[in-house]
Amino acid sequence: MAGPVWIDGRREDSVSVCDRSFQYGDALFETFLIRDRRPCLWEAHLARLRLGCERLGIPLPAPETLWREALAACRGVAAGVLKLQLTRGCGGRGYAPPADPRPTRVFSLHPLPAGLEERRRLGVAVRLCHTPLGINPALAGLKHCNRLEQVLARREWRDPDIYEGLMCDTEGRLVEGVMTNLFWREKERVLTPRLDRCGVAGVVRRWVMDRLRAWGLQVLEVRAHPQALLQAQEVFLTNSVIGIVPVIRWQDARDWPVGETTRRLQRVWSS
Amino acid sequence: MAGPVWIDGRREDSVSVCDRSFQYGDALFETFLIRDRRPCLWEAHLARLRLGCERLGIPLPAPETLWREALAACRGVAAGVLKLQLTRGCGGRGYAPPADPRPTRVFSLHPLPAGLEERRRLGVAVRLCHTPLGINPALAGLKHCNRLEQVLARREWRDPDIYEGLMCDTEGRLVEGVMTNLFWREKERVLTPRLDRCGVAGVVRRWVMDRLRAWGLQVLEVRAHPQALLQAQEVFLTNSVIGIVPVIRWQDARDWPVGETTRRLQRVWSS
Repeated sequence: MAGPVWIDGRREDSVSVCDRSFQYGDALFETFLIRDRRPCLWEAHLARLRLGCERLGIPLPAPETLWREALAACRGVAAGVLKLQLTRGCGGRGYAPPADPRPTRVFSLHPLPAGLEERRRLGVAVRLCHTPLGINPALAGLKHCNRLEQVLARREWRDPDIYEGLMCDTEGRLVEGVMTNLFWREKERVLTPRLDRCGVAGVVRRWVMDRLRAWGLQVLEVRAHPQALLQAQEVFLTNSVIGIVPVIRWQDARDWPVGETTRRLQRVWSS
Repeated sequence: MAGPVWIDGRREDSVSVCDRSFQYGDALFETFLIRDRRPCLWEAHLARLRLGCERLGIPLPAPETLWREALAACRGVAAGVLKLQLTRGCGGRGYAPPADPRPTRVFSLHPLPAGLEERRRLGVAVRLCHTPLGINPALAGLKHCNRLEQVLARREWRDPDIYEGLMCDTEGRLVEGVMTNLFWREKERVLTPRLDRCGVAGVVRRWVMDRLRAWGLQVLEVRAHPQALLQAQEVFLTNSVIGIVPVIRWQDARDWPVGETTRRLQRVWSS
């Protein structure tokens, strides 16, 4: 870890090997952008965490506790990244979770990734990954800690000029980037992959969809093949840390200009 | 953990929160039956671990080191369970693994589950799980630490009379039990699900297939719907700890007698 770690409110940086996140990836996480000593979009992140807890059967800690610990971690931090990992804790027999789980809360502080401003201004290049995303509605949308698919996809390239890899499901439909959600504009319509079968339902993705609809634009969640991007007038990526980043190149496929919708969203995002 | 734990050869029971198994389930594991101070089927387990390491890009520690640490953990243990978890270790940026990973080895000792002999003798009841297994050839066959599907499936029942849940893939084909592999006999043919799209390629599953073929029986790996079991003359489950256990009831569907193939395999297994 780059920065300090708090486990259940105490400055510690190790966990029991019996923790179910270590054993099975039996956990959820949220990654917050810190601006001026505050985690951004707190309520939206917490809503996703709550949904994940309900679907996995992990008791959500008191939101006041999480907020207090988050604020304490962000103390004095003008800009950075706060990660919250919530595990099912220890216990149970094998895969069977304990009847009365005692979740582990892990907050950790990280610096902003380098080159963020430049990427937002100039845009980034992407590639298409070979590693597919398995389809499973039971886990779709959640930011859980079973992330081997993302690890394998991210291992596919080392070229630092490629910022992100786009992933398809096992049926060849676009889902998301390894660490981002994906949008593209076709004339007056903005499209983004449906996430009912796999993928992470990003907090900034939701923010972007709400914002675009408030502006009267049509936003569609679709099952599309990657080739659909060839018809796009503009393409952009979102996540909690990068915000909104234009895609200017799909390696070996085509280039795009930075689009007007991307710029308009960026202006509101950073204001 | 019920028993002692060794991390990289030292008696410790906590790991850094930066360990990638805690963060992403970026790890593999093996579960050995201990008989008379020795882990059983060592070479077969190690072969699967090696395959997993190759596919995930985790360097396999020197087998002599693993063997030495395994023997030390089994010292004085007449019967029990040894678990080895091999993680990618710490490091990397987000999902991107470090270029030069330093894996973490975790050995832990556990008692044999209660009631094992009785289950082998009398057989067990199973149910069909609703939680599906996602299809992903990139991970199929491996005993990796992304196990949320198993956790969710195991949460579906608490009835102690149900020993195991059978799981299908998202296309409705039988794959395996939550913690076991599945076999059934139809006349002279023994069938087991194909594991090229999901599932764990069990070490005892392999042992059973080799043994049956050595006896001149036909063994087929198939994609079958659960209803195929209704035609079976006998059904059994395998894993490294339970060995071979007959299934005598599929809840709300049908009963089976303990079959002759099951008994014959059990006799060789325990000899």
